[in-house]
Amino acid sequence: MIKYPNGKTTTKKPKEDIIYKNRGMNFEEEINYSNEYYLKEDIAVIYKKPTPIKVVAMDSNDFNRYCITKAYYQQPSTTDYNGIYKGRYIDFEAKETTNKTSFPLSNIHEHQILHLANITRHGGIGFIIVNFKVLGEIYLLDIKHILQVIDSKRASIPHDVFVKDGILVPQGYVLLIDYIKAVDSYYMSKGENNNG
Amino acid sequence: MIKYPNGKTTTKKPKEDIIYKNRGMNFEEEINYSNEYYLKEDIAVIYKKPTPIKVVAMDSNDFNRYCITKAYYQQPSTTDYNGIYKGRYIDFEAKETTNKTSFPLSNIHEHQILHLANITRHGGIGFIIVNFKVLGEIYLLDIKHILQVIDSKRASIPHDVFVKDGILVPQGYVLLIDYIKAVDSYYMSKGENNNG
Repeated sequence: MIKYPNGKTTTKKPKEDIIYKNRGMNFEEEINYSNEYYLKEDIAVIYKKPTPIKVVAMDSNDFNRYCITKAYYQQPSTTDYNGIYKGRYIDFEAKETTNKTSFPLSNIHEHQILHLANITRHGGIGFIIVNFKVLGEIYLLDIKHILQVIDSKRASIPHDVFVKDGILVPQGYVLLIDYIKAVDSYYMSKGENNNG
Repeated sequence: MIKYPNGKTTTKKPKEDIIYKNRGMNFEEEINYSNEYYLKEDIAVIYKKPTPIKVVAMDSNDFNRYCITKAYYQQPSTTDYNGIYKGRYIDFEAKETTNKTSFPLSNIHEHQILHLANITRHGGIGFIIVNFKVLGEIYLLDIKHILQVIDSKRASIPHDVFVKDGILVPQGYVLLIDYIKAVDSYYMSKGENNNG
């Protein structure tokens, strides 16, 4: 907790804790920790992209350090995460749902789906990671299966599709969300499933 | 080139010339335009990462849209650009210099060099693009040549190194900075130079 001069107390990260509660920030942080682990162990180099912010006004009278005085969060044009693993380009979006039977497609933006399809077409690996919070299950699902659901005019991806076509992501204590293990078993095993 | 009333010549974008002069925004914007071209023509999928911003204070009293009221620019932990081309992971930093004989290494942060070295070790393509503004020359230089200069304890990369070990980036009217052509000739030609 930080005490501000106006007497209000707040946590370090007001945005995440207050505004985005129940919107997946803890899940994101767990993935970020996994990425730090992969980097430290030289397994993969994957980073979360910063959230784009539209700066509207600035002030330079703050100890010569430019201070942003008015700005807004913007919609990212791509996905949250990308990087490299075993020479392959990796790109994904991570989402949570409290739903037990399906993942509503309204949780992913159309341009993010198009971006993942672009990546696949250029020879990269594109997928989503979905945390079914109530079930305690996390799945990796390749973009091609998302496109199949969209083609079939459904508004959500049934949990069954994750079980059948996705990969259950191992969860542990040291490595909280070992999604690279899921990448390994889906994309890296002998010539199977590569490039959608 | 456009001739302005003051007799100076400049490139297409007067507004940015005034505000961001000597801050590299024109060069960055030209690369962004090139990336839009590559995306539109389905040649490559490469994006600039948003600049990370540390949000300190927010206000929700702005028509129910959360407004950031205090924030600071942060140092990026990686490079500015990454993406995919011909199935290969691409990662680079773009810089400008008014120097005519060398590019001072102080223009690149150590963690960015380490990041590019990480990328190469994992099978990706990592380089810098340097715009020698006064010379009107733009070069692509692979990270391995930067590491060689660092190993030799020099504080800057001589222009000669760019000429000898780098690739001159074609500049044009439609495609302002065709760095993918330089990537092609350096990394994609028959088995040469791949992965450092």
